[in-house]
Amino acid sequence: MRNAGLNVLYLSGINNNVMKVSVYLFLFVFTGLNLHAEDGHDLWLRNKSSGHVNVECSGNSPTLSIAIQELQQGWQGADNAKVVLIVKKDKSIKYDGFKISRDGIQANTDLGILYGVYELLRHQQTGESVEVMISNPSYEVRVLNHWDNPDGTIERGYAGHSIFWRKGDSSLVVTESDKLLWQQYARANASVGINGSVLNNVNASPLMLTKEYLEKVKAIAEVLRPYGIKTYLSVKFSSPSLTGGLKTSDPLDPEVIKWWKNKVKEIYSIIPDFGGFLVKASSEGQPGPQDYGRSHADGANMLADALKPFGGIVMWRAFVYSPNDKDRARQAYIEFVPLDGQFHDNVIIQVKNGPVDFQPREPFSPLFGAMKKTSVMAELQITQEYLGQSVHLVFLATMWEECLQSDTYQEGTGSTVARCTDGSIYPQKHTAIAGVANTGLDTNWCGHHFAQANWYAFGRLAWNNGLTSEKIADEWIKLTFSPVTPQQKETAGSSSDWAEHFLIPVKQMMLQSREAAINYMMPLGFHHLFAANEHYGPGPWWAPKRVRQDWTPPYYHRADTTGVGFDRTRSGSDAVSQYHEPLGSQFNDPQTCPEEYLLWFHHLPWDYKMKSGRTLWDEICYHYDTGLQQVRGFQKTWDKVEPFVDPERFTHVQSKLRSQCINAQVWKDACLLYFQQFSRKPIPYDIERPVYDLDEMIKTDMRRL
Amino acid sequence: MRNAGLNVLYLSGINNNVMKVSVYLFLFVFTGLNLHAEDGHDLWLRNKSSGHVNVECSGNSPTLSIAIQELQQGWQGADNAKVVLIVKKDKSIKYDGFKISRDGIQANTDLGILYGVYELLRHQQTGESVEVMISNPSYEVRVLNHWDNPDGTIERGYAGHSIFWRKGDSSLVVTESDKLLWQQYARANASVGINGSVLNNVNASPLMLTKEYLEKVKAIAEVLRPYGIKTYLSVKFSSPSLTGGLKTSDPLDPEVIKWWKNKVKEIYSIIPDFGGFLVKASSEGQPGPQDYGRSHADGANMLADALKPFGGIVMWRAFVYSPNDKDRARQAYIEFVPLDGQFHDNVIIQVKNGPVDFQPREPFSPLFGAMKKTSVMAELQITQEYLGQSVHLVFLATMWEECLQSDTYQEGTGSTVARCTDGSIYPQKHTAIAGVANTGLDTNWCGHHFAQANWYAFGRLAWNNGLTSEKIADEWIKLTFSPVTPQQKETAGSSSDWAEHFLIPVKQMMLQSREAAINYMMPLGFHHLFAANEHYGPGPWWAPKRVRQDWTPPYYHRADTTGVGFDRTRSGSDAVSQYHEPLGSQFNDPQTCPEEYLLWFHHLPWDYKMKSGRTLWDEICYHYDTGLQQVRGFQKTWDKVEPFVDPERFTHVQSKLRSQCINAQVWKDACLLYFQQFSRKPIPYDIERPVYDLDEMIKTDMRRL
Repeated sequence: MRNAGLNVLYLSGINNNVMKVSVYLFLFVFTGLNLHAEDGHDLWLRNKSSGHVNVECSGNSPTLSIAIQELQQGWQGADNAKVVLIVKKDKSIKYDGFKISRDGIQANTDLGILYGVYELLRHQQTGESVEVMISNPSYEVRVLNHWDNPDGTIERGYAGHSIFWRKGDSSLVVTESDKLLWQQYARANASVGINGSVLNNVNASPLMLTKEYLEKVKAIAEVLRPYGIKTYLSVKFSSPSLTGGLKTSDPLDPEVIKWWKNKVKEIYSIIPDFGGFLVKASSEGQPGPQDYGRSHADGANMLADALKPFGGIVMWRAFVYSPNDKDRARQAYIEFVPLDGQFHDNVIIQVKNGPVDFQPREPFSPLFGAMKKTSVMAELQITQEYLGQSVHLVFLATMWEECLQSDTYQEGTGSTVARCTDGSIYPQKHTAIAGVANTGLDTNWCGHHFAQANWYAFGRLAWNNGLTSEKIADEWIKLTFSPVTPQQKETAGSSSDWAEHFLIPVKQMMLQSREAAINYMMPLGFHHLFAANEHYGPGPWWAPKRVRQDWTPPYYHRADTTGVGFDRTRSGSDAVSQYHEPLGSQFNDPQTCPEEYLLWFHHLPWDYKMKSGRTLWDEICYHYDTGLQQVRGFQKTWDKVEPFVDPERFTHVQSKLRSQCINAQVWKDACLLYFQQFSRKPIPYDIERPVYDLDEMIKTDMRRL
Repeated sequence: MRNAGLNVLYLSGINNNVMKVSVYLFLFVFTGLNLHAEDGHDLWLRNKSSGHVNVECSGNSPTLSIAIQELQQGWQGADNAKVVLIVKKDKSIKYDGFKISRDGIQANTDLGILYGVYELLRHQQTGESVEVMISNPSYEVRVLNHWDNPDGTIERGYAGHSIFWRKGDSSLVVTESDKLLWQQYARANASVGINGSVLNNVNASPLMLTKEYLEKVKAIAEVLRPYGIKTYLSVKFSSPSLTGGLKTSDPLDPEVIKWWKNKVKEIYSIIPDFGGFLVKASSEGQPGPQDYGRSHADGANMLADALKPFGGIVMWRAFVYSPNDKDRARQAYIEFVPLDGQFHDNVIIQVKNGPVDFQPREPFSPLFGAMKKTSVMAELQITQEYLGQSVHLVFLATMWEECLQSDTYQEGTGSTVARCTDGSIYPQKHTAIAGVANTGLDTNWCGHHFAQANWYAFGRLAWNNGLTSEKIADEWIKLTFSPVTPQQKETAGSSSDWAEHFLIPVKQMMLQSREAAINYMMPLGFHHLFAANEHYGPGPWWAPKRVRQDWTPPYYHRADTTGVGFDRTRSGSDAVSQYHEPLGSQFNDPQTCPEEYLLWFHHLPWDYKMKSGRTLWDEICYHYDTGLQQVRGFQKTWDKVEPFVDPERFTHVQSKLRSQCINAQVWKDACLLYFQQFSRKPIPYDIERPVYDLDEMIKTDMRRL
């Protein structure tokens, strides 16, 4: 664990927050928030200026005004220092990148200046020195996907209702407090480099393309625009027939093509910098080109052609599978790879990190790197649908780092997922990355204070896909939990004390948290062991007759008395062959397959010998128990840092960790007792025994049906 | 831990159970029980004969017939051995005691012979050799108190409804299966020396003295009689006015006296060997002599005089306290000690082991030994009202041993509670001991298989109040869990293997179990921390305004920011002075007060230094956590013995232990988080953190109101 040194700039940050109230009052006066209660609404933007800065700026725009204001509000450098902001083309600067030097910040665009300002302030606040640096974003498009519905609910949202939509008579009214909230949202995004927001659910309502809704999109876009956030919409592929009065939505039908062209033109007349469309088509019951015998390419290209004149893009999701597949994990590759080369250059294929669906751990999707003539982007899930939702503390940067750094070998060693998507290897007209947002109307935005770190981490990785999760956690903790009250500062003592007693243990907790969740939920390659459709608690038994098999856990774990796991080897579903060599062979052989993917690729006997020397069954048991013990460890870590944290956030997180601990126990007990029916072996006796009864857990589960 | 050697007799018991089915079929044929499923209905009487025995008997009676039959059914001595049963007076034999020699069994009474037979069989089955022994009961009356109501419910019963009473049209009908069940009940009692049953709740219904009910009592008495079990009844003191048509129930009123004399006469005309009355009077709202300005002695003597001509006795409970007392623990002593010498000789004052109410740990009641001219008997509670009911595995013999062996110092060193009640010290016309029964209609009688051990232990201690709990546990385990199926026998291997892998760990679990319960419920002298009136879960906060204070936990724990505990010292309620020196002074000084009673007698600051060097607060925390860890240890112990136990009982107990573990966690979390509000100190960081939230627990608790 690296212990970043805290320099003088940082210390001045700790000791000079007295101006907080006066400087920031304007922002919060409308919402009536108590500035002294740390309710999390300020996110990682709670550190305020400690001195005066003289800003010289070459231009004049809403974005530059924000840049100047942010510098003045957040300055923690030398008092009365001078900073020059210059918008000037430089070949070393890409997109909205920037250059920071002793004199100030240079960029190609106003937005680049704003990003440079946030970077400079972050350096000051985290205590990292800045001499000269150039920073360019890894991806051109860094976009949040909001699964927000027009009625204000959010699919897989665990932090309250939508900040954009609401049901009832006032659904399309825009209030001043709406605008304030959207501004705070835009600022938070811009501060970490996010530059786009898809405002509605991929399971899209055709309502969204109506005039009334587009007017509200316009109002949102106006607030987001100065912060460099473009607006996008998810569209329903059958909109022409659903709301346009056409008889078909066939993408090759001239009337359909015309309808979309007109609709796009209308959108751009309202929102001139509109970003484009996100499309879930021919997927999980959503309409799509396959309904008319057309391909994904036919559908995506038609929309892309309509957007092309305005500079818009289509993000076409590859999340496809059908109940007839022998192996759901293989389907996207089978459908999309043959289409490589057929997509127009403003189409980007949006691929989830793993081949199934945002499980706690999956190998990377084999589509990454396999489509060599097509723009491909990763879809990461910030909202913790399968990772404890807003109850469990799970820092996702480690998962995303694992995916982005996975080597596909598609163009030789080093063909990482990151490089296969950011234009380093393949000629992509557009590069992009998407994160499914975890924000809602909860005061702290994300439900769990530590879930804010995942929003932060997504932005930071979207900007720089080479960042380590350790670096991201380090930054986030310093920004979010640095002491502000006199009492906290006294407790914190010197910066090295604070690092030793707060930063390091909390960072360690964050960095272990996803592995802990894997341990207590689904270790060793297990996946999709969830009860029912909530994707929260365990249900390895869950398989009601009327539910399609690929939505039930037994489809994935295949446990029986001979063993457990999904055989995706060459003698099984052969999913291994979708991976480039040497991965295909490596995954195919249980002896060389990484043990964290073992049961993803193999069905093995319960007494299969693991590298530890233990049997598979024993190893499973130890993993589940380790997960529970890890959560107990997190509780200790958190309780120990109580003196360093405001009571509001301390108590909130403490309570969440308690629930997480109970949940970890439920997961462990449910899975071990369920699988024990097949393994017919005792849980090793040095392991703490289950406390819940399998029958009771199944009964409770069934009562929910 | 003593490891009793298992001799040849015992081994033959293990290896010769093939006759089980044929020999015992007659007993179970009516109930349709599956003899191979170990449902616990056989209790500790599951070992069957392994050979033939020739019995010679000097007399002829139903009791002797049972004695002969038991010998033949349970014989595990040498095949074709001869046993002589002789009823012959012997001065060394007391009451229904007996003498076992090489030739056979001798006793003063037929019942003595039956007890001798059970003792001999127990020795054979547990593998203890018998040369020559005389065994006399410690108490003349060894009685179960059934808190069974006429409608079949049982107050504080956790094993189903009453075996004696039921509601509905058939309430007074006596069926063959009733009689079979009563016979099994009588046999179980006789086998451990119990010789009386109070058939109804101490909160008595006047119904019980009506002709109809007395006819059913007669039917029960007829089944119990051959096994030496006398029937007793609880009576409502106001019966003369409630059902007799009198204007008063004043014990000095001639009409009242006459009414009781006639009622007693009627009872004896129906049940000639009726045992007598149990009375709860002027206690918890029950009517009593104090309603008429009379004393407990006036009330008890009036009833005793009515019973005297027939040899009946009165067991008069000393469980009295009122909402006005400054210290409930002092009240019984204050009311009863001044009456010493006034009670007639067939009255026995029945005193609960502790001065409050069957708490997990109390010091002994100061009444023991203090009434020197009065017969005093102990009332122990077999049903686990305050000790986890039928969910927690808590072996109570250790608690009873602790009480019986407590030295009162009333007549010098060695004046133990046992000796103060069994006639060793004081001239008592009658000696007795009572246990509040834990039996019900559950197939296994007691709800929890291990709760059977408490019924067994009560009987054994009532017979011999000097037995150690270790000896009782050892016997019970051997009788109740010795291997019977060929597979179990193979698993068990040699008797020393079985002892090492089953007997010793299970015995250790039983012997630790009550201390574990104290640790996770109320260590260090805490008492009555229960939520509401169920006496199951924790509720140190529980104090609704309308509830009298002495029924709420804060009355007992007195926690505030200055400290915790009930000050019963000389500068407090002065309860210490009810104890004979040197106890009074010892209890009065926190430095000499045993730490297990510390908060019973003292209100101490949170940072009071304990003998361990820890603060009181830390010590409290470690006790609660230790309790939880102990239950986890019991789970491990039990899981490890799985190969030695039939699946039915194994699974049942495993499931109960799981619930107990969850409960222990709830107790720990509730108490630590509640008291932490006053201690304002962290739970030591090496202790596992709470997982439940205090607010949630209180809310759940309040919802029940």
